[in-house]
Amino acid sequence: MSSKEDTRSFREAWVSFILDLQNRICNVMEEIDGKEKFLSESWGREGGGGGLTRVIAGGNFLEKGGVNTSVVEGMVTEPMRTQLKIDGHSWFAAGLSLVLHPLNPYVPTTHANWRYFELYDTDGQVIDRWFGGGSDLTPYYLFTDDARHFHSTLKTALDPFGKERYPAYKKWCDDYFSNTHREKEMRGIGGIFYDHLRPTANADIDFLMAFQRASAEAFLPAYLPIVHKRLGHPYGPLELEWQEIRRGRYVEFNLLHDRGTLFGLKTNGRTESILMSLPPRARWGYKYEPKAGSPEAALLDACKHPRQWI
Amino acid sequence: MSSKEDTRSFREAWVSFILDLQNRICNVMEEIDGKEKFLSESWGREGGGGGLTRVIAGGNFLEKGGVNTSVVEGMVTEPMRTQLKIDGHSWFAAGLSLVLHPLNPYVPTTHANWRYFELYDTDGQVIDRWFGGGSDLTPYYLFTDDARHFHSTLKTALDPFGKERYPAYKKWCDDYFSNTHREKEMRGIGGIFYDHLRPTANADIDFLMAFQRASAEAFLPAYLPIVHKRLGHPYGPLELEWQEIRRGRYVEFNLLHDRGTLFGLKTNGRTESILMSLPPRARWGYKYEPKAGSPEAALLDACKHPRQWI
Repeated sequence: MSSKEDTRSFREAWVSFILDLQNRICNVMEEIDGKEKFLSESWGREGGGGGLTRVIAGGNFLEKGGVNTSVVEGMVTEPMRTQLKIDGHSWFAAGLSLVLHPLNPYVPTTHANWRYFELYDTDGQVIDRWFGGGSDLTPYYLFTDDARHFHSTLKTALDPFGKERYPAYKKWCDDYFSNTHREKEMRGIGGIFYDHLRPTANADIDFLMAFQRASAEAFLPAYLPIVHKRLGHPYGPLELEWQEIRRGRYVEFNLLHDRGTLFGLKTNGRTESILMSLPPRARWGYKYEPKAGSPEAALLDACKHPRQWI
Repeated sequence: MSSKEDTRSFREAWVSFILDLQNRICNVMEEIDGKEKFLSESWGREGGGGGLTRVIAGGNFLEKGGVNTSVVEGMVTEPMRTQLKIDGHSWFAAGLSLVLHPLNPYVPTTHANWRYFELYDTDGQVIDRWFGGGSDLTPYYLFTDDARHFHSTLKTALDPFGKERYPAYKKWCDDYFSNTHREKEMRGIGGIFYDHLRPTANADIDFLMAFQRASAEAFLPAYLPIVHKRLGHPYGPLELEWQEIRRGRYVEFNLLHDRGTLFGLKTNGRTESILMSLPPRARWGYKYEPKAGSPEAALLDACKHPRQWI
């Protein structure tokens, strides 16, 4: 395993990368929004580290959004041992996590996360390390072109690191972002999701860092063209109601199934930063079903039956 | 333990009671509403039994509500053994569960549940039996008189069964309906909550049945006068926004902490009946805080610091 100095500079390179990407993402979103800015809030964590929460609300483009980085470390606690099966003395984690809820129901909600984790023994030597993350899309109306564009941009970014990655991580995403209590209806139309990518003989930690950067750099080119294409689409109260219903499913997934949300809330994480992922508005009706043959039903069908978009 | 015939007629008496109460509650709510009616939907459960879901939406008084009964039985499954610590061969459960979300933010949301459970050995002999339930109030604006009326009506109903019950079940309710991830902020201003009330030397099963009926019969007199008093209160978009914020907390409690909801969803329960408890509209803002000294802040203070209303 690498020396302490090596891993320190590796960590620092990753931290610089996510702070810079956070900045770039916020800047481009503000530019499109034209009205509201991201507020910045730094916080510290008992036990070590902290984060930079950047949130926006009430914009022309973004009704609510958060683009957060956190760089934290601590001792391995009992809930980490039992719930996360993490076996070590101390740990370090740094990641960028974002959720953007546009106002216009024709512009999809999106979520992305890229994280790096290190685990140490009592001497501070790295005994385990991995990358995890991905990007996914939650449209309210289905445009096949948009779904293809989002998925193929991610695929193109991942392919240089092995052609097997996109199909595997696409399926992982479909399986993960699934409301199992609603017959596995997906939250949206997926993207990619992966976790515990550890260095191997064929893919050392530098290779994985390059992969992770490529995955993260693919987010803006995957999402922005869809925003530009749909932002001017007219909508009314019916589209907003449907958006709220689908956002209710988003809330259900995040509060019932999302491992990061549940782990954070149960281990004394920063509630407001964790729940920044929740949509501004949501709605629930009893057995709400869109009309057969409607655009709303077409979206629902794509959520119920994962498709190969490419 | 009692003979099979005795327990069968005991079960039947309880089932008749909850079906009749369901009917009475729906009738009086429809009368107040004046516009919408409760729809009825019967469902059967694989493994035994079923239920009668009664839901209303879009009314003058009730924006969304459900008053559900279920009478179900089955074999003890692995999740029941591990998660509910239930040790037996088969079981029976019958209960009434209601959640009413009024449109007017000055009328509180309310929830109540009264249930009876029996556990059997391989010979079908009753080896355990208990009652559970309670009623609680989730106002959006605080009227001390209303809180006192709600709590004292429940206390008056419970006192004949032991003066220790109301204070104990009031505290149980405050502790249970708590968003532990938000510094134990309560969902509302409580009421009563109790579970696993088993027959003892001083309180046999008939005594407990009388107690449970008294608890259930106290619901309408506890809630209705508040509805009549506040239904005409004028409101605007600001009150609706605050109502939606508080309803967001309601969603958080039900999806993150409510044992019944989580157990039902994880054991293949009927999702739409379980989630009928969710509000029609909800809202989330980042670090949303009411203005100091406002009526909204007064309500929040009562949720953060449980009070003795009587």
